[in-house]
Amino acid sequence: MTKENIATWFQGLQDDICQELEALDGKGKFQEDKWQRPGGGGGRTRLIEGDLIERGGVNFSAVHGDLPDNIAAALKIPDKQFFATGVSIVLHPHSPLVPIIHMNVRFFETSNGLWWFGGGIDLTPHYVHPDDSKLFHQKLKGTCDAHHADYYPKFKVWADDYFYVRHRKETRGIGGIFFDRLGEQDGFTRESRFDFVKAVGNTFIPIYKEQVARNIDRPFTEKEKKWQYIRRGRYVEFNLVWDKGTKFGLDTDGRTESILMSMPPTANWVYNHQPEEGTAERETLGYLKKGINWI
Amino acid sequence: MTKENIATWFQGLQDDICQELEALDGKGKFQEDKWQRPGGGGGRTRLIEGDLIERGGVNFSAVHGDLPDNIAAALKIPDKQFFATGVSIVLHPHSPLVPIIHMNVRFFETSNGLWWFGGGIDLTPHYVHPDDSKLFHQKLKGTCDAHHADYYPKFKVWADDYFYVRHRKETRGIGGIFFDRLGEQDGFTRESRFDFVKAVGNTFIPIYKEQVARNIDRPFTEKEKKWQYIRRGRYVEFNLVWDKGTKFGLDTDGRTESILMSMPPTANWVYNHQPEEGTAERETLGYLKKGINWI
Repeated sequence: MTKENIATWFQGLQDDICQELEALDGKGKFQEDKWQRPGGGGGRTRLIEGDLIERGGVNFSAVHGDLPDNIAAALKIPDKQFFATGVSIVLHPHSPLVPIIHMNVRFFETSNGLWWFGGGIDLTPHYVHPDDSKLFHQKLKGTCDAHHADYYPKFKVWADDYFYVRHRKETRGIGGIFFDRLGEQDGFTRESRFDFVKAVGNTFIPIYKEQVARNIDRPFTEKEKKWQYIRRGRYVEFNLVWDKGTKFGLDTDGRTESILMSMPPTANWVYNHQPEEGTAERETLGYLKKGINWI
Repeated sequence: MTKENIATWFQGLQDDICQELEALDGKGKFQEDKWQRPGGGGGRTRLIEGDLIERGGVNFSAVHGDLPDNIAAALKIPDKQFFATGVSIVLHPHSPLVPIIHMNVRFFETSNGLWWFGGGIDLTPHYVHPDDSKLFHQKLKGTCDAHHADYYPKFKVWADDYFYVRHRKETRGIGGIFFDRLGEQDGFTRESRFDFVKAVGNTFIPIYKEQVARNIDRPFTEKEKKWQYIRRGRYVEFNLVWDKGTKFGLDTDGRTESILMSMPPTANWVYNHQPEEGTAERETLGYLKKGINWI
């Protein structure tokens, strides 16, 4: 299982997901930008703007070269020749009743043989419905449990901690799973880790289809659209202030337009916005906490 | 000149500026939120939403207490008891033809007598007009020159370097002046530094009035409004990714709503937006460079 095999599989995943998302959207078609990284490697950035998805990015990249000193120090790795490949997705739907979804699967290797996988899937509903959240987490748990009993409990907590908007004291959404540095600890092999990561990648479409199907036909109001724009503002805050992946990309002179494809088309900020007691918006804020057992 | 005197003067500056901005706006009135900082001190956050100013924040704060270890290390100061006071302003006008303006003046002191002033004024026109930019920089130079011949040349370059959106390879706007750690180096006294900072504070209203007067009566189009929203997206990117003041505030558990009052009411992101050759938007991008001598 070489790094080239892994990159090839990720590339195929990007193709499959794009095809499925076009079918799901019904109208939007992906546009592709191929890019080269000056330091080595490159990627395929794909953007869709359709009927269901107001803006969605599905990115593949496989890059290599010298790691900047500060990044090598942050990652605590001595070797500075690296290879990194992955698929990264953020979808911003038109409807405020359909959640934002994010997925990332990635593989990292250094020239002296250190390697690991990372990734995850998390959901950011503008309005949280515990029934939908339960289904989402059940599906993720199913995917995890097929590979190791510890995965879901551990990666669920990790997602709660990672997707946390510290300055707002709220989670970005209802979490999901997040994992990093999955290497050959505890008897795992490269194959067994990769099998799990493949399963996560393959879970993306069925899990999002289900969330869309449950909500796409519900009509929405102007008030709900405004709330969506405010929640998108929080999404922007998380990604630009706290997200390590975004920071890594911007620090290593990654392709800005690909990294910031996670930004929503429109976001609003309202000073000191506090939804009234008894509203759906207020109820959603009550769900943006760590440690909720959705299942 | 005690720290209390300085805080009192800053508070008066906030009052004066708010009064002048209400007169300039003609309709909007400031609303005030007083807040206390759990670790010590507090502030007065003031917000205006009017005819000229879509959203503007004029904040005063005077806080004190223990400095978190990571901040003390970043500031390279041994003493961990601090006092900080300042006024911070960001105005987002309705019209895309009127520039965004930002001002900050601040004073910092530790319990063993280390102290400094910092601050600056910078302008972010959605459309850059070199005539307006020249007047803006001339006024700043006049303010600086009255205090020291080195101030303007040094602080102008500092602003170019500070207000730089690195991942976009563009400046936030046309710069202005930026300075920090103005202490008793080079024979300056607390009084002479404070005199300069007061002059900067007092320059804010006349300098912005002039920029408004030159542009407020020009009608604007839907296309110009869209461009404004994209430029505001860049403003968000700078403030959340690169601005040390925002980072300091969020890291020290400052009042989030006051810190993020710099966010625009609405911002847009358009994938890979590149204005056509020969347009005013393209021309503006050409001006978002370091090292332009506007005067």
